[in-house]
Amino acid sequence: MNIDMIMAASTRIDGRARRTPLLSSPFLDELAGRKVLVKPECLQHTGSFKFRGAWSAISALDEGRRANGVIAYSSGNHAQGVAYAAAGHGISAVIIMPADAPKLKIANTRALGAEVVLYDRASEDRDAIGAKLAAERGLHLIKPYDDAQVIAGQGTVGLEIAAQAAELGIEQAEVLVCCGGGGLTSGIALALEAKAPKMRVRPVEPEGFDDVARSLASGRIERNAQNAGGLCDAIVTPAPGDLTFPILNRLCGPGLVVSDAQVLDAMAQAFLRLKIVAEPGGAAALAAALYAGDQLQSDTVICTVSGGNVDPDVFARALARI
Amino acid sequence: MNIDMIMAASTRIDGRARRTPLLSSPFLDELAGRKVLVKPECLQHTGSFKFRGAWSAISALDEGRRANGVIAYSSGNHAQGVAYAAAGHGISAVIIMPADAPKLKIANTRALGAEVVLYDRASEDRDAIGAKLAAERGLHLIKPYDDAQVIAGQGTVGLEIAAQAAELGIEQAEVLVCCGGGGLTSGIALALEAKAPKMRVRPVEPEGFDDVARSLASGRIERNAQNAGGLCDAIVTPAPGDLTFPILNRLCGPGLVVSDAQVLDAMAQAFLRLKIVAEPGGAAALAAALYAGDQLQSDTVICTVSGGNVDPDVFARALARI
Repeated sequence: MNIDMIMAASTRIDGRARRTPLLSSPFLDELAGRKVLVKPECLQHTGSFKFRGAWSAISALDEGRRANGVIAYSSGNHAQGVAYAAAGHGISAVIIMPADAPKLKIANTRALGAEVVLYDRASEDRDAIGAKLAAERGLHLIKPYDDAQVIAGQGTVGLEIAAQAAELGIEQAEVLVCCGGGGLTSGIALALEAKAPKMRVRPVEPEGFDDVARSLASGRIERNAQNAGGLCDAIVTPAPGDLTFPILNRLCGPGLVVSDAQVLDAMAQAFLRLKIVAEPGGAAALAAALYAGDQLQSDTVICTVSGGNVDPDVFARALARI
Repeated sequence: MNIDMIMAASTRIDGRARRTPLLSSPFLDELAGRKVLVKPECLQHTGSFKFRGAWSAISALDEGRRANGVIAYSSGNHAQGVAYAAAGHGISAVIIMPADAPKLKIANTRALGAEVVLYDRASEDRDAIGAKLAAERGLHLIKPYDDAQVIAGQGTVGLEIAAQAAELGIEQAEVLVCCGGGGLTSGIALALEAKAPKMRVRPVEPEGFDDVARSLASGRIERNAQNAGGLCDAIVTPAPGDLTFPILNRLCGPGLVVSDAQVLDAMAQAFLRLKIVAEPGGAAALAAALYAGDQLQSDTVICTVSGGNVDPDVFARALARI
């Protein structure tokens, strides 16, 4: 796992993933007390950065293997990213989703061209269903974060941040990244190590799901007491990955933790000042930039808004706080 | 008023205005029954395309004239665009606003560095106040649309559309533009006449404020029965301008008219599928693309989302329709 893999992923993704802009607002700078730059991956295809990793992983397969199709487990952004990237390659995708996942997410994943296989969380074993299907059809499993080609794809966000910051004359910054399993965070950290070495990546997590912050503090993989639930569902994972954690541990500064109230307020600020739709898990880094300034050191912070797939009723809760 | 002025404005604006991306979603294509590309000027500085025209007009002034400062009448997007463009030039801006304008808009305009002068709509004459101030201080008036350098600045949206569509291999399209006084529409039409002559611009207006559609039909400037109010406040103007109408009349296809319900639904689709915040007046063109397909001919439509400055309660009305 190194910068060459990210550069290669960037070449494969070029013209397929959107190069998202770097946004800012004088009102956010004022609120944060420093310069705030936002990388809005909510504007990426399928509404999150996950499309990059999915495209990278699928495009890296050799042609014969790829033709058999791919499989993924996800009820969220990874599902849509894999479905759309598979459709773009003209291959089939099987997505294993819990039967009680939101109907809209199931419908969206199907509409993006995937075959959705539902399972009963209480009585069925997801991994067994997936393994059987994969073996029968020769499907390639695309993991959400603990996969080198997925990390390489997410790392293209870091390449863009380095280039876009350089255009603005910015070399030094803390780069705040919404962090679940660590695929996006480790990819960005590797890219910046090579392309903008004066920047420091800091993972941001919601309260109650701060496995990465605790893992960075202790130097070994720590797990969350709970594995699901919470407002920031998109970045709730049991623990950092076996591939991602060593990268995070080597390259990232201390983790930051934000409250649900701060996340909702950050969603409202993104609406008011940037005119973008942030989902709760995608607003965590912006929340840290705006409301955890006492834990930041740099004059400039760059933060990802990593996704925008939020239900209208949750978004309305954020709007009601304005 | 010609393409050379737009090219010159583009040079002056380069690195100052954002080059907004061209967005799309397979879900919107499905809904519209054709390819839909969206130019999200809500992501522009100050949340609307107005920043382009303001920057163009201010940067075109000779240095001595510019140093005196500028003045504008507006309670909306033009006010914020002029205020921020003036601040970027290090000059003063006076914005004349009605005393009953929303407090947030007044506060925002002040926060962007402008001096806000309030007047009483019932008892005071806006033009007299502005003329007196302009004469006393030598301020340059920046009109919202009937100004050649403002039109040239808005035309840079058209240059970007032409270049971005060409990258996608698209030469032919109907280009739907949210239309008030016609500054953005005429600027885009002039740019595309030169750079993408197979595209046809079509203005889009809300029901009850279809002065441009009627003017294009009759071949002369028609006025609205009412000059204010309506959901789409940002694009409600009394009539097309003396400078803009001849351009619209020469270059644009028939106008399109959308209902408030269609506008709210388009705002909801922009939220769901593009993760951008559209204000009502900024969603009119997308509404036409999605819901007035029987009046369109081309396989591809490109539409502006011209602004995103919407109050949370109005946005919540759009979300409630999902």
